[in-house]
Amino acid sequence: MSTLIRGGTVVNATGAVAADVLVQGEKIAALVAPGFEVQADTVIDATGKYVIPGGIDGHTHMEMPFGGTSSVDTFETGTIAAAWGGTTTIVDFAVQAKGTSLLSTLDKWHSKADGNCAIDYGFHMIVSDVNDTSLKEMESCIDAGVNTFKMFMAYPGVFYATDGEILRAMQKARETGATIMMHAENGIAIDQLVAQAIANGDTDPVQHALTRPPELEGEATSRAIALAKVTGAPLYIVHLSAAQALDAVTKARDTGQNVFAETCPQYLYLSIEDLAKPDFEGSKYVASPPLRPKEHQGELWRGLRTNDLSLVSTDHCPFCFKDQKELGRGDFSKIPNGIPGVEHRIDLLHQGVVRGELTVERWVEISSTTPARMFGLYPRKGVIAPGADADVVVYDPMARQTLSVETHHMNVDYSAYEGMELTGKVSTVLSRGKVVVDDDGFHGGAGHGRFLGRDLNQYLV
Amino acid sequence: MSTLIRGGTVVNATGAVAADVLVQGEKIAALVAPGFEVQADTVIDATGKYVIPGGIDGHTHMEMPFGGTSSVDTFETGTIAAAWGGTTTIVDFAVQAKGTSLLSTLDKWHSKADGNCAIDYGFHMIVSDVNDTSLKEMESCIDAGVNTFKMFMAYPGVFYATDGEILRAMQKARETGATIMMHAENGIAIDQLVAQAIANGDTDPVQHALTRPPELEGEATSRAIALAKVTGAPLYIVHLSAAQALDAVTKARDTGQNVFAETCPQYLYLSIEDLAKPDFEGSKYVASPPLRPKEHQGELWRGLRTNDLSLVSTDHCPFCFKDQKELGRGDFSKIPNGIPGVEHRIDLLHQGVVRGELTVERWVEISSTTPARMFGLYPRKGVIAPGADADVVVYDPMARQTLSVETHHMNVDYSAYEGMELTGKVSTVLSRGKVVVDDDGFHGGAGHGRFLGRDLNQYLV
Amino acid sequence: MSTLIRGGTVVNATGAVAADVLVQGEKIAALVAPGFEVQADTVIDATGKYVIPGGIDGHTHMEMPFGGTSSVDTFETGTIAAAWGGTTTIVDFAVQAKGTSLLSTLDKWHSKADGNCAIDYGFHMIVSDVNDTSLKEMESCIDAGVNTFKMFMAYPGVFYATDGEILRAMQKARETGATIMMHAENGIAIDQLVAQAIANGDTDPVQHALTRPPELEGEATSRAIALAKVTGAPLYIVHLSAAQALDAVTKARDTGQNVFAETCPQYLYLSIEDLAKPDFEGSKYVASPPLRPKEHQGELWRGLRTNDLSLVSTDHCPFCFKDQKELGRGDFSKIPNGIPGVEHRIDLLHQGVVRGELTVERWVEISSTTPARMFGLYPRKGVIAPGADADVVVYDPMARQTLSVETHHMNVDYSAYEGMELTGKVSTVLSRGKVVVDDDGFHGGAGHGRFLGRDLNQYLV
Amino acid sequence: MSTLIRGGTVVNATGAVAADVLVQGEKIAALVAPGFEVQADTVIDATGKYVIPGGIDGHTHMEMPFGGTSSVDTFETGTIAAAWGGTTTIVDFAVQAKGTSLLSTLDKWHSKADGNCAIDYGFHMIVSDVNDTSLKEMESCIDAGVNTFKMFMAYPGVFYATDGEILRAMQKARETGATIMMHAENGIAIDQLVAQAIANGDTDPVQHALTRPPELEGEATSRAIALAKVTGAPLYIVHLSAAQALDAVTKARDTGQNVFAETCPQYLYLSIEDLAKPDFEGSKYVASPPLRPKEHQGELWRGLRTNDLSLVSTDHCPFCFKDQKELGRGDFSKIPNGIPGVEHRIDLLHQGVVRGELTVERWVEISSTTPARMFGLYPRKGVIAPGADADVVVYDPMARQTLSVETHHMNVDYSAYEGMELTGKVSTVLSRGKVVVDDDGFHGGAGHGRFLGRDLNQYLV
Repeated sequence: MSTLIRGGTVVNATGAVAADVLVQGEKIAALVAPGFEVQADTVIDATGKYVIPGGIDGHTHMEMPFGGTSSVDTFETGTIAAAWGGTTTIVDFAVQAKGTSLLSTLDKWHSKADGNCAIDYGFHMIVSDVNDTSLKEMESCIDAGVNTFKMFMAYPGVFYATDGEILRAMQKARETGATIMMHAENGIAIDQLVAQAIANGDTDPVQHALTRPPELEGEATSRAIALAKVTGAPLYIVHLSAAQALDAVTKARDTGQNVFAETCPQYLYLSIEDLAKPDFEGSKYVASPPLRPKEHQGELWRGLRTNDLSLVSTDHCPFCFKDQKELGRGDFSKIPNGIPGVEHRIDLLHQGVVRGELTVERWVEISSTTPARMFGLYPRKGVIAPGADADVVVYDPMARQTLSVETHHMNVDYSAYEGMELTGKVSTVLSRGKVVVDDDGFHGGAGHGRFLGRDLNQYLV
Repeated sequence: MSTLIRGGTVVNATGAVAADVLVQGEKIAALVAPGFEVQADTVIDATGKYVIPGGIDGHTHMEMPFGGTSSVDTFETGTIAAAWGGTTTIVDFAVQAKGTSLLSTLDKWHSKADGNCAIDYGFHMIVSDVNDTSLKEMESCIDAGVNTFKMFMAYPGVFYATDGEILRAMQKARETGATIMMHAENGIAIDQLVAQAIANGDTDPVQHALTRPPELEGEATSRAIALAKVTGAPLYIVHLSAAQALDAVTKARDTGQNVFAETCPQYLYLSIEDLAKPDFEGSKYVASPPLRPKEHQGELWRGLRTNDLSLVSTDHCPFCFKDQKELGRGDFSKIPNGIPGVEHRIDLLHQGVVRGELTVERWVEISSTTPARMFGLYPRKGVIAPGADADVVVYDPMARQTLSVETHHMNVDYSAYEGMELTGKVSTVLSRGKVVVDDDGFHGGAGHGRFLGRDLNQYLV
Repeated sequence: MSTLIRGGTVVNATGAVAADVLVQGEKIAALVAPGFEVQADTVIDATGKYVIPGGIDGHTHMEMPFGGTSSVDTFETGTIAAAWGGTTTIVDFAVQAKGTSLLSTLDKWHSKADGNCAIDYGFHMIVSDVNDTSLKEMESCIDAGVNTFKMFMAYPGVFYATDGEILRAMQKARETGATIMMHAENGIAIDQLVAQAIANGDTDPVQHALTRPPELEGEATSRAIALAKVTGAPLYIVHLSAAQALDAVTKARDTGQNVFAETCPQYLYLSIEDLAKPDFEGSKYVASPPLRPKEHQGELWRGLRTNDLSLVSTDHCPFCFKDQKELGRGDFSKIPNGIPGVEHRIDLLHQGVVRGELTVERWVEISSTTPARMFGLYPRKGVIAPGADADVVVYDPMARQTLSVETHHMNVDYSAYEGMELTGKVSTVLSRGKVVVDDDGFHGGAGHGRFLGRDLNQYLV
Repeated sequence: MSTLIRGGTVVNATGAVAADVLVQGEKIAALVAPGFEVQADTVIDATGKYVIPGGIDGHTHMEMPFGGTSSVDTFETGTIAAAWGGTTTIVDFAVQAKGTSLLSTLDKWHSKADGNCAIDYGFHMIVSDVNDTSLKEMESCIDAGVNTFKMFMAYPGVFYATDGEILRAMQKARETGATIMMHAENGIAIDQLVAQAIANGDTDPVQHALTRPPELEGEATSRAIALAKVTGAPLYIVHLSAAQALDAVTKARDTGQNVFAETCPQYLYLSIEDLAKPDFEGSKYVASPPLRPKEHQGELWRGLRTNDLSLVSTDHCPFCFKDQKELGRGDFSKIPNGIPGVEHRIDLLHQGVVRGELTVERWVEISSTTPARMFGLYPRKGVIAPGADADVVVYDPMARQTLSVETHHMNVDYSAYEGMELTGKVSTVLSRGKVVVDDDGFHGGAGHGRFLGRDLNQYLV
């Protein structure tokens, strides 16, 4: 079974060429110059369109337990929504509960995901409990294809790790080549501010941002970088939102330290003004770190251009407004944290191209190629090249669309981008050679996606 | 009773003038130009010498309990030694024990010091236990003349305060105008490194430095600055030893933030090489933060010139080699922390003048005038001016001396500067108008020194 | 003849004390504590007032030739205006014309000033012509009490020195201890922008600022610092106006390099909006560097607090609106450059105290003490201390005044601060012991002021 | 005519894949996965080897007139040597002589190169004479495929442009999208130091470095960046050698400014110690900027990793030791400036891979892909992709070689790297589909290479 994607412009991270892409089975078999004749069972006409590697969303939370409830996209609904938006791989977070083991956690997440995903998927591991056993288990996780370990400088009593625990995990990372991912907010200080706000009767959603000042994200980011420096561990800052944090990352990267960071579409397009919307609407925009004042957005776009921000993930973590977000009425600290977005990342970043913030190559790089290299999936994923998995998106850069809860495929009752008009839209999506999305709709389904054991971070020096 | 100090060069922080100083009772009554006739009961000839304000050592630990033992200088022996060295004021640290109150702590320290000091003295308060009561008590301490509150980012279980506790204390400082003093080392991470070293059998004194890398002092300093920024509190970094920490202070001061730092003579003259001395000699040099590689010294001198380091204190905390330092044989972490120095600060800093590191005015500034302004004692102390306390030192810049345990007056069985040859020596010391040291020896005694209730930091903007 | 200034608060740079000041002849004979009885021929009551060292304006241009006209204050009118405003010393610029010698220039300026000044005065030397002879003459100038040499990175064909010439002069400065003062604007690039603006018909006064962007002041400042680094010369940046330039100075000072800078009151209070005033009013505000957008003002105040700006001078260079400023109607580049201000510096800086930007000690420091030390006049000037010249100002911090051409004493037909209301006003001014200004008016006159041979910069390390 | 390069690892800038490369005529027709059958007339076995895009050397000086003599490689000998080393494109500098036009200069260089090159080539234009005519001609040059204009901040009287001229050229660059290339050394200051050294009798080759201190490269780089900021022009710093210059570039790039820089192999591997070799041997290493102290090398490697240095060119400018370098015996300033290197760039950079300084992808990026994008040749050059020119190098990463004048192909009588042992060596080189180098020797020749009209810099945002 072969497919020829003909007439398009193949955009890889380092440049665009006119070329046809031949898919055989699950793999890309060849890239050929336009005039060169190739036979195939099926032909997809990509004239006037981009042919890009499928998106890789390195930060999602499907079916994630949180404060007695759970994020509402299952691995099935979430991966289908992802596919609709041109994302053909996700890396989701397995969450160690205190007192449990990393390996049993991994088993648990496999049992949630295996057989239920519409696209390929991998796991990061959240380490909530650092001790001799879990440190040892990190090695087994790496053998099992999970070599990125997320820790939290916030949420004491739940995910929080002390600087001593972080140091120990980083020493293990240094030893094994694993990468430590960090939620960098000074949660110990923040929790005081939160308690004071609640005590003062300041309970609206906007307080979520006011009690988590950007300086405390900057501080935690600097601290994580210092600990990484002392231990020699690779460090990856998740969901960077504040100029202060970006400044710390920039300085570390200037010295050549193995420090990386992602941001998310919500920090590029939304702001504290959304959190301040009346009638508890602001709760839809509660995530941590919080949305920032608008002036941070320009800095983040700048960071994406200068590669101080390496890539963009979504931190997709959907909670419905009704019954879930509403748990926090009268106490913003009880609002489930998370903003839905896995479906819109590719489109929202393409909007950066439309606005002149990014080149088309950089768009592909931050949404697919760099995630693939950062998370050890390259060249299987993240590139249109012979031998790669045929995760291919045909993208129409001229199509118009309007984002809305009415039309999106995520299992959540609101859109954080309701009414936003975009230029650019997915035409066809192939996942490992199979057309899963085209003009006729969705043709994939749960079970098509396979687990991806991942290699180490390919950016380390 | 009047005394005229005649023929000397009066050196204040902003410059030197030829002038005679008339003392009446406990106060300076007048500064007069050389030709102007003044009558006095006694005349001290200061020809060829400097007439400077008595030194103020803002960081001492007399009779301090530490790990089952106690620093060996009492308020009596320590203040006599100070006077010998030209220091006429100390600010010592009252140490709150967990579970006790700040005010009872202050009472306790008053009962130790009152009637026992040979020179004037004040207190800082170490806050070990942050809670609603102790935060409230900070106000009473301020009323009682103690408005500088020291906290620790190290020593968990003893002095350590969490970032949340620091934030709360800083909020109170912002509200009251008090200054937070910070021991800035990431003790949580350090304790892991210490435990690992001990477990590895690396137990020699030099490990004290190797397990407390300068990056972790830099990190904690940056963190304290960030918390001060969020709260608006004045911050004073004690015993800064590392270039990384100085860099953080420099950057904050460049922005005009109320951030200040002191260093200590041991960081200017001693290094990790002393800690590495054989036969457990290195234990004599164990203090926290540890002595650093020599290249940090040049940075510290630079910081003193550029005013990124505001002043020099001693962190005088003497433990005898025999029976005290020796407690740490076979386990460096059990060596009592501290280096004696209250007697030598003025001389060691004058050596900076001799070496061309400092001007003579800056020498006076960092050893007396700035401490007076920083700790709310100016213009009662820290300046040769009418109305000021007659704490006056006649200093011979040409005299030679050799430091040694044989000749020093501190109650400790070794000198950290044994055999060091210096140019410059105290000739005469007046404490509140009384000659306490001259060529004939020591004329003061316990009980002369009075408690100094202090005003707020005068550098705040 | 003796005078006692009684009951005031003596404010020196390091602090304020209640003290009486005894003046005998031209000198301060004694500072005495309030209770201490002193006899004097005359008593000035300073109750409720500050007693401060007379102001030192380190940057004035009296009777300066400029483009066929001349600044309109003579040494007589200018120094009388200065005295009215509490300034008792000026350092004016002797201006070498190309092809003439430094020593003949100095003679010429002596012949202009000697016998005509109402207060003491010194000279800086503008070096327009760098060659073997003039470099050699720098030594003679230093012997003659002129050791600060100003050069220009702007005004090609008039004052401009190439980087090679600057390098040579800096080498001589390094060798002799002299200080190079720098007008730091990239005049070569600026002149292109000016020519382009004129060619485009953009001829209004505001173009003066638009063609001299702050980046080009920052660039020149950085370049001067680099040349000073290569040669080891002390460097003093005159009339710093832009945040970019301040940033360069701050970085250099952080490393301990001998780099200093002044700003001027016009950059602290006026802005490009004044230059944009209609009906050619903007011409009144034309000086170089130009007034900047308002956001630079906050940075300059910050720099004054952090000592990255060492002092404030006026760059007093008055041209009348009528017939002089008007020369530039239709061509902004022909507007004589300069803003009058020698009379208002002390008051305008006191306004910084009123607004909470500065402490009262820092006010004295930047307007008198630091200029004295920077320009080698200390302790003769710049301090209230025995033996110092009795240049003393009794200042009423509560008096109100309104600045206006109607009331000022400068010989110029407009005020750059017309209608500005200030708190604080000079009560009495003594110049070398003589009361020259008091409530009854002006009692001094031409010829009282004497030339001051100056020592080297006292801040060098 | 078709060729299949089979069995190798195709290395592009974003990653390596096992793939076969089909060449048809002058172009790459297809990349195919290993198992996929393709027919071809010829097969090259690349088993165990890298298949990389041919090198692009963006900075060469063939047959360049310099001080009465000429660089000794002709376009023929120089391009043959380049091909031997795996470089299949050069961009050489056409040199405007003062008083001549840009277009006539371009004609002249075409007449030198056309028909004489063994590989493809393009031109940059050196602008020595900025005036209305030459600024206008820049537009015609751009139309003719030359859109990168080099200027000099050194060499007054020859190439030197004033800051005003640079500003004007940058304005034109901003307007047209052209890039200004800059030789950034403060030649005006340097020439003073040179003249002083000669006058002092300090005439040895090492003086070349001592009279061109790195601070003056840092200064000029900062100045060029400031001028680019004011005008909005893209800026490319050629042959960056000093940490100070790199620091300026890094800071500018952190802000997202369109600033780029190259370094050269000599700055990565050679140092001032080579310049200090006795018996006038040092003259072989005279180039500008000069070789630096060794500690700069680590910073440059760091810059290559962090992308603050975008690429590596050679500044190939060969002068023989005999008769040419010897012109400077007794006066280092008369030594022709230049070091030969066009043949060894790919190998020397591969040595960075061997030493762990670079990844294999980054090696390809800095030697081929980035030059292609920076100089507007992508995707025709700089990538292994369908439709690209078949400039392909088969590289054996395990082969060993020793550099020597005995074996190199450059037309110069010494090697700057004599005796240096390297791992890695070119096996086969295709230029536009033709095998020009293989185990049997050189098969190409003058006339094969074609002129490349270039598009604009593809990195601009």
